[in-house]
Amino acid sequence: MARIDPALAAARTAVRADLADLGPDDLVLVACSGGPDSLALAAAVAHEARRVGRSVRSRGYAVRAGAVVVDHGLQPGSDAVAERAAQQCRALGLDPVVVREAVVVGTGDGAEGAARAARYAALEAVAQETGATTVLLGHTLDDQAEQVLLGLARGSGARSLGGMPARRGRYRRPLLGLRRAQTAAACVASGLEPWHDPTNDPDAVHGGPVPLRSAVRGRLLPVLTEVLGPGAVEALARSADQLRDDAAVLDAQAADLLTRALPDPGTTVAEDGPAGDGAALVLDVAPLAAAPAALRRRALREAALRVGCPPGTTTARHVDALDALVVRWRGQGEVHLPADVRATRDCGRLFLRPSVTGPRHPAPHPEE
Amino acid sequence: MARIDPALAAARTAVRADLADLGPDDLVLVACSGGPDSLALAAAVAHEARRVGRSVRSRGYAVRAGAVVVDHGLQPGSDAVAERAAQQCRALGLDPVVVREAVVVGTGDGAEGAARAARYAALEAVAQETGATTVLLGHTLDDQAEQVLLGLARGSGARSLGGMPARRGRYRRPLLGLRRAQTAAACVASGLEPWHDPTNDPDAVHGGPVPLRSAVRGRLLPVLTEVLGPGAVEALARSADQLRDDAAVLDAQAADLLTRALPDPGTTVAEDGPAGDGAALVLDVAPLAAAPAALRRRALREAALRVGCPPGTTTARHVDALDALVVRWRGQGEVHLPADVRATRDCGRLFLRPSVTGPRHPAPHPEE
Repeated sequence: MARIDPALAAARTAVRADLADLGPDDLVLVACSGGPDSLALAAAVAHEARRVGRSVRSRGYAVRAGAVVVDHGLQPGSDAVAERAAQQCRALGLDPVVVREAVVVGTGDGAEGAARAARYAALEAVAQETGATTVLLGHTLDDQAEQVLLGLARGSGARSLGGMPARRGRYRRPLLGLRRAQTAAACVASGLEPWHDPTNDPDAVHGGPVPLRSAVRGRLLPVLTEVLGPGAVEALARSADQLRDDAAVLDAQAADLLTRALPDPGTTVAEDGPAGDGAALVLDVAPLAAAPAALRRRALREAALRVGCPPGTTTARHVDALDALVVRWRGQGEVHLPADVRATRDCGRLFLRPSVTGPRHPAPHPEE
Repeated sequence: MARIDPALAAARTAVRADLADLGPDDLVLVACSGGPDSLALAAAVAHEARRVGRSVRSRGYAVRAGAVVVDHGLQPGSDAVAERAAQQCRALGLDPVVVREAVVVGTGDGAEGAARAARYAALEAVAQETGATTVLLGHTLDDQAEQVLLGLARGSGARSLGGMPARRGRYRRPLLGLRRAQTAAACVASGLEPWHDPTNDPDAVHGGPVPLRSAVRGRLLPVLTEVLGPGAVEALARSADQLRDDAAVLDAQAADLLTRALPDPGTTVAEDGPAGDGAALVLDVAPLAAAPAALRRRALREAALRVGCPPGTTTARHVDALDALVVRWRGQGEVHLPADVRATRDCGRLFLRPSVTGPRHPAPHPEE
């Protein structure tokens, strides 16, 4: 038997661990762009799905494995790129393989945000149509490091710096421990021909502004690695793992704190969104003021989101202003928050009033 | 009355807030290198120390304010630089002004680490000799951003990324909210002539390797700002603030967890260092395994430090190996930790055995 390429073996091992809890009736879909990361993922999944089992010692059983290729239609020839990716997925034995056009609409989150929203909407739709329990994404350790650096620019602590979770809902990212060089090598070893997105090349002339993520990849990460050393990318990803663990503990404790601060939770706030009738969210100041800053600020941010502040535009400075009502109270007036939410303090209570016309914010992307 | 330069006013406001809790008998020392940051700090302290009070409405009282200039002796002419800094501090009205030579010894922490250790040893010595209650350091928001980026390279989560605390022990950093451009402007406005350390210039020829911090300052931060936007430096510092708040909560909870995991804390471990008689630190696995990863890993790291592992060389990978004994137990053998500490699991307990000859690790620097 021929020796398996080490990068391909690493991709297979990672995929095997992430498929181990799936049953024989489950359908997994690889989200495949045709690029090296997701094509290597498709190859590893096609191989491993045939022999998934709960124990490495058992022979295991197969899960059904397919692929979904999203065509954003943003570049000329994107349909041919999508069809080529689908062909390679079919040749690997994946079935079904669905090509889906994504409708990109401006959401105020920038072009990259709009494309991402359209991509996840398409993935959701295909997952529901095919009955897929699991969608696998090809993000690598390099993508994770980029995500952390993008989070640095937002400056919102562990939430921004925690990067992408390995699992969230039906989405999983088996390759988060692999470098991009490994996925490229795995493609070569598998005889696959990945497509290279020209917008990922910061020096390429492709008629548009360089996307922020491409600038992080092409310009910032190389200097970071040169100055801080070759381990900096792994270090960024490792920090992200730890910060997500931290955030899980603190977010849970902040949710408890928020519940304790609600004088009458049943009547003042809906669990998962703004109060539909424009009612204020009322919070007792005392339990908030007694809590450490890390929990108090998280609870206040969550309270703001519950009355309709959008997560993307609710910044640390907004939370600062809310926090001042709690711990630096000197009779200050109304605090203005995004989406026309207003906060005031009166008689030891905070009142967060949603806008009468404010929209419910959309569900967060799996990256958030 | 002439208008005060806004940068100088900002420095004075920051210093005023940081001196407000000092009493009339307190002596504060400015740690002054002669560079723009610490010289601006010296000017602001000399002005504000004359009228410190607990309320901005009261006229206040004076605190005694002096300066300490540390001469590392690493560059030719460093004694003249130190003397020039001391002269400017005296001209500002600071008293006493002490110049102290720092003896730099290799500690295995690299040349920058050795210089830092020598600097803090000299500051400690002068503070004790003069009876100073408080030592003020001139680190700015830019220094904080650099510290966060240096922490990224270590990849140890909130602890690495939390940067420098505004206060720790007798040390305070009043200028952490100011940009470096503001301290330079404050020096100009005060008629001061700061010294510019040639080792901070990555393009200068000064006969030695570029220190890591200088490379971060001169090469990495400019690209980071260019790619992520001009707010990236503030965002880094703001994230650091939040991560320190997070770490304070999690560290306290991890200390509680460690206490709960000690079957007999009185006899197995000294509170602040390795067990002097080489006794093992014994921990019950059950409470550790039941805790979330963020607390369990912090408790395990703290346990390793208590039996003599040095904080600087005890990495996330070491904690991973300890953690595997707790949550991925499959009969694995002894785990080797820094400073010849060994860890094993037996009958539902972890045993951390200090080296018989291992040294106690030194007290952490205020930057850690």
